[in-house]
Amino acid sequence: MSHWFHDSEPADVVSIDDRAFQYGDGLFETVAIRSGEPRLWDYHLDRMTMGCERLQIALPDVRSLRRQLDHAVTQSGDIPGYCAAKIVVSCGVSARGYGRETPTSAKTYIGVFATMPVAKELYRDGVETLVCDTRLALYSATAGLKTLNRLEQVLARSECIARSAFEGMTLDASERLICGTMSNVFIVSNQTIITPSLHRCGVEGVMRRHTIETLRANDIAVDIQDVNEDKLYRSDEVFLTNSQFGILPVRRCGEKVWQHHPVTNKVMAMVAKNGVAECAV
Amino acid sequence: MSHWFHDSEPADVVSIDDRAFQYGDGLFETVAIRSGEPRLWDYHLDRMTMGCERLQIALPDVRSLRRQLDHAVTQSGDIPGYCAAKIVVSCGVSARGYGRETPTSAKTYIGVFATMPVAKELYRDGVETLVCDTRLALYSATAGLKTLNRLEQVLARSECIARSAFEGMTLDASERLICGTMSNVFIVSNQTIITPSLHRCGVEGVMRRHTIETLRANDIAVDIQDVNEDKLYRSDEVFLTNSQFGILPVRRCGEKVWQHHPVTNKVMAMVAKNGVAECAV
Repeated sequence: MSHWFHDSEPADVVSIDDRAFQYGDGLFETVAIRSGEPRLWDYHLDRMTMGCERLQIALPDVRSLRRQLDHAVTQSGDIPGYCAAKIVVSCGVSARGYGRETPTSAKTYIGVFATMPVAKELYRDGVETLVCDTRLALYSATAGLKTLNRLEQVLARSECIARSAFEGMTLDASERLICGTMSNVFIVSNQTIITPSLHRCGVEGVMRRHTIETLRANDIAVDIQDVNEDKLYRSDEVFLTNSQFGILPVRRCGEKVWQHHPVTNKVMAMVAKNGVAECAV
Repeated sequence: MSHWFHDSEPADVVSIDDRAFQYGDGLFETVAIRSGEPRLWDYHLDRMTMGCERLQIALPDVRSLRRQLDHAVTQSGDIPGYCAAKIVVSCGVSARGYGRETPTSAKTYIGVFATMPVAKELYRDGVETLVCDTRLALYSATAGLKTLNRLEQVLARSECIARSAFEGMTLDASERLICGTMSNVFIVSNQTIITPSLHRCGVEGVMRRHTIETLRANDIAVDIQDVNEDKLYRSDEVFLTNSQFGILPVRRCGEKVWQHHPVTNKVMAMVAKNGVAECAV
């Protein structure tokens, strides 16, 4: 069930000439709503701001956006306090043709979705993953951003559905580990916590940032570096981050199984203490 | 002015949950309509078929699509015989989430747009171009296809508008010439006609294919190979192909000017004879 709003009015449809429909010309954020409040709101705004700059979109009025978000959450009365809000920033309607004036003013749409908490066993035992066949293109002009051009994730995620995996690891075209289809990946290797560099492709998730910052605030280093597929399999532990579920250990990737997650459990406890209650194991 | 249709009924809006709006999950074709008939229709269908296979979309019923196209063109009565029809193949509405069942059945939308012929002087003297700053990502899973993920072209084309150029040359992230923002590129170098390889990125245009096949049918070779930026500037002639305008010589790219286009003019004459009347100089 979903409820969409534009300018605080219900919005079930968009113009067929909307540039998001025609070209994927825009950005989005998926915000976890907990007890009616948007979690990690400032990080979502930071990424949206960076995205608007790089796509040359005029940043929506942030105070008004927050009011519209609160209104949307309140109006979606049949959806409990635990839900997801998706904010779509579209470049709106224009005449046919790729080009637009820059910066372009944006139209924002807010959808509120009922979500289910991930089962407690998965926080304890970890999730099943695979390596997707779909590879991410290298040196994307939109690396790091959450744009509306998501065909790579659509193809990779559809592989997970076809093969009944909770999540799929995506590699880039040079076989480096980048992220999950809907999450970021961390590995633990010889007591070091590492997460892949995202300067060539991938999305810089808000929960990835929150995890890195939480660890660093606890004097635990996180290395951001290139990680090849082999290093993934040789790692001692693997975990995923996502704005909705927080942190989940990885139990399996293809043939490789990780039974124990001691470092991951420590990270989960720290992040749980730092505002992401789901992570408490 | 535009008229959009879905299942032969007017369609001004789409569901906000449409996957084309949410993820750019789909394909499109822009077909030149001349005297009411779609030009190079079989080539458009071939590319759409290849795209549907690679994106795991069930191919729309092709006979029904043609009937809908003819209906849309006829119904757009105030648009003369010289226009463009844009066919959008969207994966339609689904629940939130990147993944979908594969193959997915598609929804098709057809828009008919009034277009103006390009001025005769440009066919004679050539067009002004520049090299865009936006680089195309390498080894894209959708290389060659005309998907609804077009942010690279949006950014590159917007550069052309900001700098008043007719077209922009796009390079890939390794500085190879790939194509124009809305066209394919050919260069003439020591009497050899060359067009860039599109296996890493770029769109395989139907007019590119028609030009290659027309040349080969006239026993003129076309080399498909990697072309670096330097080779572009050292070339003797450059021309662009596009489904709507056919072929146009390039007069300028940045500082480099080409005054004469003798080989290009021969190619234009051949392609004009082979169904693309605009090219006759």
